[in-house]
Amino acid sequence: MSSVIDLLKSHRSIRKFTDKAIEPELLNELVLAGQAAATSSFLQGSTIIRVSKKETREKIATLAGNQKYVETAAEFLVFCADLKRPGNFCREYEKAFEGDYTEHFIIATVDVALMAQSLVTAAESVGLGICYIGGIRNDPALVSELLELPDGVYPVFGLCLGYPDQDPEVKPRLPVSVIMKQEVYNEEGDRDSISEYDEAIREYYRTRTGGGHGISWTEQVSGLLSGKARPHMKEFLASKGYKFK
Amino acid sequence: MSSVIDLLKSHRSIRKFTDKAIEPELLNELVLAGQAAATSSFLQGSTIIRVSKKETREKIATLAGNQKYVETAAEFLVFCADLKRPGNFCREYEKAFEGDYTEHFIIATVDVALMAQSLVTAAESVGLGICYIGGIRNDPALVSELLELPDGVYPVFGLCLGYPDQDPEVKPRLPVSVIMKQEVYNEEGDRDSISEYDEAIREYYRTRTGGGHGISWTEQVSGLLSGKARPHMKEFLASKGYKFK
Repeated sequence: MSSVIDLLKSHRSIRKFTDKAIEPELLNELVLAGQAAATSSFLQGSTIIRVSKKETREKIATLAGNQKYVETAAEFLVFCADLKRPGNFCREYEKAFEGDYTEHFIIATVDVALMAQSLVTAAESVGLGICYIGGIRNDPALVSELLELPDGVYPVFGLCLGYPDQDPEVKPRLPVSVIMKQEVYNEEGDRDSISEYDEAIREYYRTRTGGGHGISWTEQVSGLLSGKARPHMKEFLASKGYKFK
Repeated sequence: MSSVIDLLKSHRSIRKFTDKAIEPELLNELVLAGQAAATSSFLQGSTIIRVSKKETREKIATLAGNQKYVETAAEFLVFCADLKRPGNFCREYEKAFEGDYTEHFIIATVDVALMAQSLVTAAESVGLGICYIGGIRNDPALVSELLELPDGVYPVFGLCLGYPDQDPEVKPRLPVSVIMKQEVYNEEGDRDSISEYDEAIREYYRTRTGGGHGISWTEQVSGLLSGKARPHMKEFLASKGYKFK
């Protein structure tokens, strides 16, 4: 179809990087590529904090669940949803600030994700590897303190970038028939497809470099949804002005 | 740098399409490319509803604010955050379902956005044009009814796909110096850069094909944040099981 489609389909997270640096001009290009993604209502509600300081990297690696590659990646970027920047102009133009609706949270969060994913594709197109770090939400208050994030700005995820020093397999995804439906939502035939997929995932973990836990997809996701996931998020977000009105 | 970076940087929304169809095999490839994007905790919390029925397209075009291209695009996809599918396995494995935390909402929403953006890049790489339709959140309850979305599934945005029948300019973005910061958040020098950018945006609207309103970026975004944005979203999401615990 196209080499870009092949590139996208070959994505896998990289957690081991060489010590080769990323040239500043290249990083700048990656950000430009990310920024060019669509932005809802032209908000451009994203800010990237580029973290180079060793001490900050170490602290974030630890709070994210001891993810060492946060320290060793050539670049570590924290993607933040930013309603402060646009909100400044409410004050400047003497308008009321009402940016604490659930909808504003969605717009800003989606903006960040679209930008990040285009930046990621740009990076992978020049041979870089990446790993998203959702683990920064383990302690978003500490991340915010370290990065001096003001009200209106919240850290959505981190991103490790660097030249790969490993070559892991691509992880299989759910069949298209399960995740795309015609006209209306329905789950006809899905259970059987998912059983087959579970087997493929068990096999993936059995055979991949470095081995793995051999847990199926359904076991993993049922675990994720039966636990209290980061229960501090609501209060943390409220403290940053995201009130879900 | 790379042709992929050039491709990403050349993105603009397309709102006028030829009547050329997208081959089913190609659509399938685009979805595979989208699915290959990273997924938080391996949740794969996304479902696409492919809407082909004329009546449904018309209704969605209307509720989205009379966006005619929802009717005329070769394909119209509704991207949904889906915690129902993984949640099914809590029940099946007799685990408690706790998937109504704010964190789960973030994971699923980000998953959807990453998948969509990779699908978009795949589409643009083969000459297709796209337009995100956030306007489906004008009436998410009606969209959910039309698409028979069950509890745990919410429509995040729509996407028009088709072969472009227009060639609009690329819309300038904020300077990188404004949106990327070193080590910590700061706004030093930003106000001046944003003033220059406001001028560029006024110029963009003055000169683009079809003309425009000539409103600067700061005026636009201050408007967005001084209004009650889709105040129904919180209650709608709660009705779908997204309780922001």
